[in-house]
Amino acid sequence: MKFRSQPAKGTQDILPEDMAVRNHVLDVIRKTYTQKGFTQIQTPSVENIDLLTNSDGGENLRMLFKILKRGEKLNLDNASEDTLTDLGLRFDLTLPLSRFYANNRSKLPIPFKSIQMGDVWRAERPQKGRYRQFTQCDVDIIGEQSILAEIELLTTVPEAIIRLGFTNFTIKINDRRLLKEMVLAANIDASIFASVCITLDKADKIGVEGVKEELRSKALTDEQINTLLGRLNTSLEDLDSEAAKEMKTIIDTVAPLYPIEFDPTLVRGMGYYTGSIFEIASNEFKGSLAGGGRYDTLMTKFQKEPVPAVGFSIGFERICDLLKSKDFTVESKDKVALIVLDDAYLTKAVALSQEMTKEDTIVSMFKVKPKKMGKRINQLEEEGYTKIIVVDRMDD
Amino acid sequence: MKFRSQPAKGTQDILPEDMAVRNHVLDVIRKTYTQKGFTQIQTPSVENIDLLTNSDGGENLRMLFKILKRGEKLNLDNASEDTLTDLGLRFDLTLPLSRFYANNRSKLPIPFKSIQMGDVWRAERPQKGRYRQFTQCDVDIIGEQSILAEIELLTTVPEAIIRLGFTNFTIKINDRRLLKEMVLAANIDASIFASVCITLDKADKIGVEGVKEELRSKALTDEQINTLLGRLNTSLEDLDSEAAKEMKTIIDTVAPLYPIEFDPTLVRGMGYYTGSIFEIASNEFKGSLAGGGRYDTLMTKFQKEPVPAVGFSIGFERICDLLKSKDFTVESKDKVALIVLDDAYLTKAVALSQEMTKEDTIVSMFKVKPKKMGKRINQLEEEGYTKIIVVDRMDD
Repeated sequence: MKFRSQPAKGTQDILPEDMAVRNHVLDVIRKTYTQKGFTQIQTPSVENIDLLTNSDGGENLRMLFKILKRGEKLNLDNASEDTLTDLGLRFDLTLPLSRFYANNRSKLPIPFKSIQMGDVWRAERPQKGRYRQFTQCDVDIIGEQSILAEIELLTTVPEAIIRLGFTNFTIKINDRRLLKEMVLAANIDASIFASVCITLDKADKIGVEGVKEELRSKALTDEQINTLLGRLNTSLEDLDSEAAKEMKTIIDTVAPLYPIEFDPTLVRGMGYYTGSIFEIASNEFKGSLAGGGRYDTLMTKFQKEPVPAVGFSIGFERICDLLKSKDFTVESKDKVALIVLDDAYLTKAVALSQEMTKEDTIVSMFKVKPKKMGKRINQLEEEGYTKIIVVDRMDD
Repeated sequence: MKFRSQPAKGTQDILPEDMAVRNHVLDVIRKTYTQKGFTQIQTPSVENIDLLTNSDGGENLRMLFKILKRGEKLNLDNASEDTLTDLGLRFDLTLPLSRFYANNRSKLPIPFKSIQMGDVWRAERPQKGRYRQFTQCDVDIIGEQSILAEIELLTTVPEAIIRLGFTNFTIKINDRRLLKEMVLAANIDASIFASVCITLDKADKIGVEGVKEELRSKALTDEQINTLLGRLNTSLEDLDSEAAKEMKTIIDTVAPLYPIEFDPTLVRGMGYYTGSIFEIASNEFKGSLAGGGRYDTLMTKFQKEPVPAVGFSIGFERICDLLKSKDFTVESKDKVALIVLDDAYLTKAVALSQEMTKEDTIVSMFKVKPKKMGKRINQLEEEGYTKIIVVDRMDD
């Protein structure tokens, strides 16, 4: 029996050139974050299924990969997905981080500034540029109630973005509390706040008229809709709540370093945000390079007391794709090929390889049949070998 | 409802200190291998279930994590594990590499020298130091028929081991073809060669008497057993086959660089080995730091023609555990704490952070209540901050 050589549906094999770009991006991000006092952790790829299915994962819950129970003989009588599975592949890094913090807080500093770089799995409908396994890079600060947490994230992540070569961006910031004030001020019931947010978040895709239509379908009156949309044009100076004051301070502090602006229409998708929300929006193309916000209540899944938390996730796959589309390549090293024509020269070749291998020099050995040498040398030059040495009686 | 904060059974949360060790080990390995012309690739964590269950995975097949089919309504009538699942988590990196090579060979150089660093999953019975998710680091050379492949691996992996601080080791080498010669010479039927190898592999654990007993239970006569065990003491000089000549050349070539010896009792567990097999054995404690061998026929799972292949896997988790037990810590950088007592100093703190952050200096900001400052400074010193600056009117 022969097997398909393609990777499983919706997943990808990563070739050396692409892997070099990915490693470069990971290295730059890790180094930048580390310099600002963040430390890296790792959680398992699998979590207990009940934790995943009872999360605020929204759409992601419909895309869970569930793992079959093991051990005892599977009981298929009256079986369902729930009784057959006990684990699932994680769909993001935020929920696992919350569990991690609850599990390990006694061993962690306060505040705890974490880096996570890891894969997540979502059974998306396969389409170009969307994979069922992809890498996320998150930084989070847990245990810092003050806006210093927002400020640290908003001065760390843009630095990584710049070091990766993306300099033309604007940080957009809003606050879920301000959005709520606006919804309430338009006489809209607080109970449908989350649902209204989901519609507002689509403005980019469906336009103002689309938003109006969808809000009407959610039983909002034209008056409510117009009041709400009017409020979304509010400037920060007109607002006077605690949330507005905090945002002014955040903006004033970050602005000397990076372009940042209040965006009252910014909503962000996740259900767990409780305060500030922000994105790094490219000025060159649609879409964001990073996004995040404050989620002060997520930890109550595990313990009684809430713990303040703010996170910022860089669009790792997006950035890799953009770099590749810009024909970015990782700086290449000197590449030396040692050609071995006969086993009699192996000892010499190995000694030479040992001697020539340096910080910035790659040395590789090749066994070549004498009559194929010309062709082989051409191939090696094409593969980027800048120095080709035929190991033979030289020096003897 | 509150959820358990522990990670899923048999898996682990990795704390910052441990993660720093892991990253250090990964960096050293990647750098060493890259300098010898290897390039990194990545395959998905999941593979199609039929590929995994029809592999030479041996024991690992009983430890597969299988993923529930998605999409259509699950059909539970006459259901079985086979009809319910279509994907599984990979249990090693060698089978995925073979699939990868079959899928991408037209885009890869010949020979292809790959680095893989990735997680694998096995539902082992949970026990100390054994996890159901763990990291493997493999190097493989695909497409090189000659012993140059063995020689490159045997001069690359020991270099990484040394750079990681393990200098007291011996490379042990044998060849499955020599083992087969010995089994045949003892008048044992070739059909039970694999089974006999499995028993021989246990010599470390069950001793010579245990091996004899197990071989008897496999219907071998005392004469066969004694002949076989006698042959296992053969010295390389007494052997004259092609395999023996190759091994002599490998040993002669590697010996000037690293201690290496023929070990006729070395067997290695995996079923797919076809030629050389080798290990890096520590001289200080029982067990190996790395192991591998030649598997020239694995690619025939995907295509008609076999492709020569040799791999060497470093014991990543083992090495991390050994480093931790030696109290190894990654060289620490200068750590600066900027204490912010009031929002009025945020702008100054951010500017100072930007200015002080350097290659080897970590700068972190902390909001501190004035009356808690003494206690906080003590905490920060305990956390390794070597410079603590209170940002206030200074310089104003």
